[in-house]
Amino acid sequence: MIANGLPASPGAAVGRVVFHADAAAERGRKEKIILVRKETTPDDIHGMDAAQGILTSTGGLTSHAAVVARGMGRPCVCGAGGVRVDDEAHRFTADSVVVEEGDWVTIDGGTGRVMAGQVPTIPARVSGEFGTFMEWADALRRLKVRANADIPRDALQARSFGAEGIGLCRTEHMFFAADRLPHVVRMILAAPRAKAIQTEVDAKRAAWKSADPAERKVLGGELRALEKKLAAPRKAYRESLAKLLPLQRSDFRGLFRAMDGYPVTIRTLDPPLHEFLPKREELIAEVALLRADWERARKRSRKAVKPAKLTRLEGLLERVEELHEFNPMLGHRGCRLGITYPEITEMQARAIFEAACEVAKQGIRVIPEIMIPLVGHVEELRHQARLVRRVADEVMARRGVHVNYLVGTMIEVPRAAVTAGEVASEAEFFSFGTNDLTQLTFGFSRDDAGKFLPEYVARKVLPVDPFATLDLEGVGELVRWAVARGRAARAGLKVGICGEHGGDPASVEFCHDAALDYVSCSPFRVPIARLAAAHAAVRGKAAASDQR
Amino acid sequence: MIANGLPASPGAAVGRVVFHADAAAERGRKEKIILVRKETTPDDIHGMDAAQGILTSTGGLTSHAAVVARGMGRPCVCGAGGVRVDDEAHRFTADSVVVEEGDWVTIDGGTGRVMAGQVPTIPARVSGEFGTFMEWADALRRLKVRANADIPRDALQARSFGAEGIGLCRTEHMFFAADRLPHVVRMILAAPRAKAIQTEVDAKRAAWKSADPAERKVLGGELRALEKKLAAPRKAYRESLAKLLPLQRSDFRGLFRAMDGYPVTIRTLDPPLHEFLPKREELIAEVALLRADWERARKRSRKAVKPAKLTRLEGLLERVEELHEFNPMLGHRGCRLGITYPEITEMQARAIFEAACEVAKQGIRVIPEIMIPLVGHVEELRHQARLVRRVADEVMARRGVHVNYLVGTMIEVPRAAVTAGEVASEAEFFSFGTNDLTQLTFGFSRDDAGKFLPEYVARKVLPVDPFATLDLEGVGELVRWAVARGRAARAGLKVGICGEHGGDPASVEFCHDAALDYVSCSPFRVPIARLAAAHAAVRGKAAASDQR
Repeated sequence: MIANGLPASPGAAVGRVVFHADAAAERGRKEKIILVRKETTPDDIHGMDAAQGILTSTGGLTSHAAVVARGMGRPCVCGAGGVRVDDEAHRFTADSVVVEEGDWVTIDGGTGRVMAGQVPTIPARVSGEFGTFMEWADALRRLKVRANADIPRDALQARSFGAEGIGLCRTEHMFFAADRLPHVVRMILAAPRAKAIQTEVDAKRAAWKSADPAERKVLGGELRALEKKLAAPRKAYRESLAKLLPLQRSDFRGLFRAMDGYPVTIRTLDPPLHEFLPKREELIAEVALLRADWERARKRSRKAVKPAKLTRLEGLLERVEELHEFNPMLGHRGCRLGITYPEITEMQARAIFEAACEVAKQGIRVIPEIMIPLVGHVEELRHQARLVRRVADEVMARRGVHVNYLVGTMIEVPRAAVTAGEVASEAEFFSFGTNDLTQLTFGFSRDDAGKFLPEYVARKVLPVDPFATLDLEGVGELVRWAVARGRAARAGLKVGICGEHGGDPASVEFCHDAALDYVSCSPFRVPIARLAAAHAAVRGKAAASDQR
Repeated sequence: MIANGLPASPGAAVGRVVFHADAAAERGRKEKIILVRKETTPDDIHGMDAAQGILTSTGGLTSHAAVVARGMGRPCVCGAGGVRVDDEAHRFTADSVVVEEGDWVTIDGGTGRVMAGQVPTIPARVSGEFGTFMEWADALRRLKVRANADIPRDALQARSFGAEGIGLCRTEHMFFAADRLPHVVRMILAAPRAKAIQTEVDAKRAAWKSADPAERKVLGGELRALEKKLAAPRKAYRESLAKLLPLQRSDFRGLFRAMDGYPVTIRTLDPPLHEFLPKREELIAEVALLRADWERARKRSRKAVKPAKLTRLEGLLERVEELHEFNPMLGHRGCRLGITYPEITEMQARAIFEAACEVAKQGIRVIPEIMIPLVGHVEELRHQARLVRRVADEVMARRGVHVNYLVGTMIEVPRAAVTAGEVASEAEFFSFGTNDLTQLTFGFSRDDAGKFLPEYVARKVLPVDPFATLDLEGVGELVRWAVARGRAARAGLKVGICGEHGGDPASVEFCHDAALDYVSCSPFRVPIARLAAAHAAVRGKAAASDQR
């Protein structure tokens, strides 16, 4: 054993060490590899997918590496502070052992241990005596257990582990695939420009109405110029949405087929748009270098032409800067995107209902639940729900198929929990996004809390990491409050949880006690959640009979 | 009139346009200037201070420019979208008018209007009939009105407007002054390094205890090497704190003198440490360029030596990267700093109590209230309060002076509001930091919300900008909840508000109704708050007599 990290995603993995996602994607096709990074980002997804397991030196139990690895069912050890990664030199050192790219390591995502060399492993299955035991557990529990799954392969995996539906499908994870990303990027570069010019057009039109004939002549000219300027970004925006529609539709078809008869909760686009664009820091450095080269070229010859690459990258950097945010976690994301760019929600709703109608026609039972993220005020939900219902009616009427569906919301912004009574007037279900709810209730960024959270737990300022086990006094109080207010406003409101806490036994017990209907967690944690739900039910009954 | 922005800080200002803070600080000494920026950052403080007024093209009513300008009493118009700033070309255009550096403009921070040229203005005073009228208002109100002031000059200004104490002194604003910043930067570069090495030393020491003699020999050598490595950063950390102590002490003396007989609420260090360091983006570009130069030099001659500047900047960039955060708003700041670096809180507490003892000896009545920021869990407050009380006892014993003081907390993290009962077991007062409480309750970053908030208000998704007028249903519900739970746990708990809402009439009325003891706002908004508090009291009485 050479290091110890956090047990971020269960299971053991053996492979050769690789330090970069591209190399991992390449080598992963031919041999078993472990991707080792300081931390992972959305750019690393293809490398993580190609790896047997993931090891990071920074980040907590809800860091990008941990969440994505759990979703993929890849074993992961994260925040292994003793691992010093030198990715330029393609090596890491841990406990004075130097591990070079290509060396074998073994990680145990259930304990957080990192071992040098190849340690023998056995495959995980819910079968035989374990299967029988899990059936006994299922007979006792009241809580349903769903899985967080974004693609059909994960959904099938989740079913094999006993998931009774999908509690969270993150549609944006579909956007990162190689065949979609170019359309997503085109959409993102075009949409804000189209919107900005459209706003100017609207203002000019309003001005035109109250203008006198002489002014109108000037305004009319300006209006025509603006409309000409608007044409290109509007076309790019529409075309990229049209390209994405059939791709998303095909994803949803796969999910619905895998979940025949079980509900599938689909969340509309959530992350800030800049997550899909090249990294700002890299662009800044590249543009600085190209500008310096060009300055030198100009000094040598006054006829020097500005390189096309510089012009292109300057344009891209400008867009990236426009989308840059100081606190992306608190920025333009979730339903805020769907409200400012309703065309995106509309495309996603269309893809969902077209897929649902197609699959329903084949005799499969489809139960879509459309979930609006990051709602803080009931009006945000009302805006998006109206849009989704309009598209649903349209598609079902055209296809001549009726599909029962629900429109609900994530409860992940403290304000939504506080005003849950109003929110429930519009929401047909609540799903507590306890990752974000914990972030906002504590004011902790899970990506940054590694700087103080371990010390907080070590010094007992906090009893446990609240991203691993739900904070019952604070976040739990908001959950209880929201359930009570929500059900008071709408009898029988369906309530679940889809944060990572859905797979943590202590948190599952809380969900049982708080009278939630279901928990949803990563596919590989489904058996744990099933057992924890049974434990909670047994404990609840024992406590009730003690009282008698 | 050439543009319209947000009325961010009241008052009119006339001056020549300047686009950079350094130039503003330079020219501002000789002539009247208006600082025009896309947005301001802490780097611009000296330029803002030298300006008659500030105009920005982006940012909302709680953007950096708005908050700092209000604190300084500088008129400010922010978020003037029609102003297109080209700071490289030293000009802006607005409504087809091109304004070059040095041209005159007039801004009206009370209405948000921007005018070309010099418009005549009159000075603001609370005197004559206005003074009499304000005395009538004071006789009616129940709420006390304090001011947010960071330096003695602002405190005197606040007193002249009738402030009955300081509700928020942001000690970090003292850190940005030219004579302090070098010590602050030295402290910030040294502290995390000293801490990291100390952690290694502690681990080695623990290992040494359970080691056998042969291992101990190796460990002993490593321990000595680590302790040697620790010496320099530890020395730098201690020395910089020692340099800051007398400077902070002198600031506090000034504040206590200005506020003779009135309470002074002093908040310990709040912002993330990287705010004091050079900008990461600029360092990235500079290092990239220097590296490219050096690569070229090495190609020309194998004997080329790495330039000292590159080595220095690479080291600085490494530190800046270590401190970089994805969501600084949710990161390592507030009491989290004071807990991981208790020496900083200790230095600040020492400066406060040494100043209090010195001034009290001169016969001035000193009422310090030490406020711990960003508390989410009672244990955080307990940790910091214990430290502050220990230093207070020590200083007062040594100086032979007794000063009554309180230790309390900001309530700005939703979790602190939810668990206010527990927090009040440790807090002698609550001060609602409604800026951050609004950010976290909505999940809105005030620096980024400009991308969607104006559209939200225009489309009536939200009735008003919640950073301008307190959101009564959500944030207000948390305030009411926290006041009730806090006072139930500690009878007579003193409760105030120190967010920007303290100067907004509608929000002041809410504070009256919620039975707060005081509001605190920027000095120039104090008269508005006094009048609003009187209005609220009169309305409350009228409503009560209607009910009879």
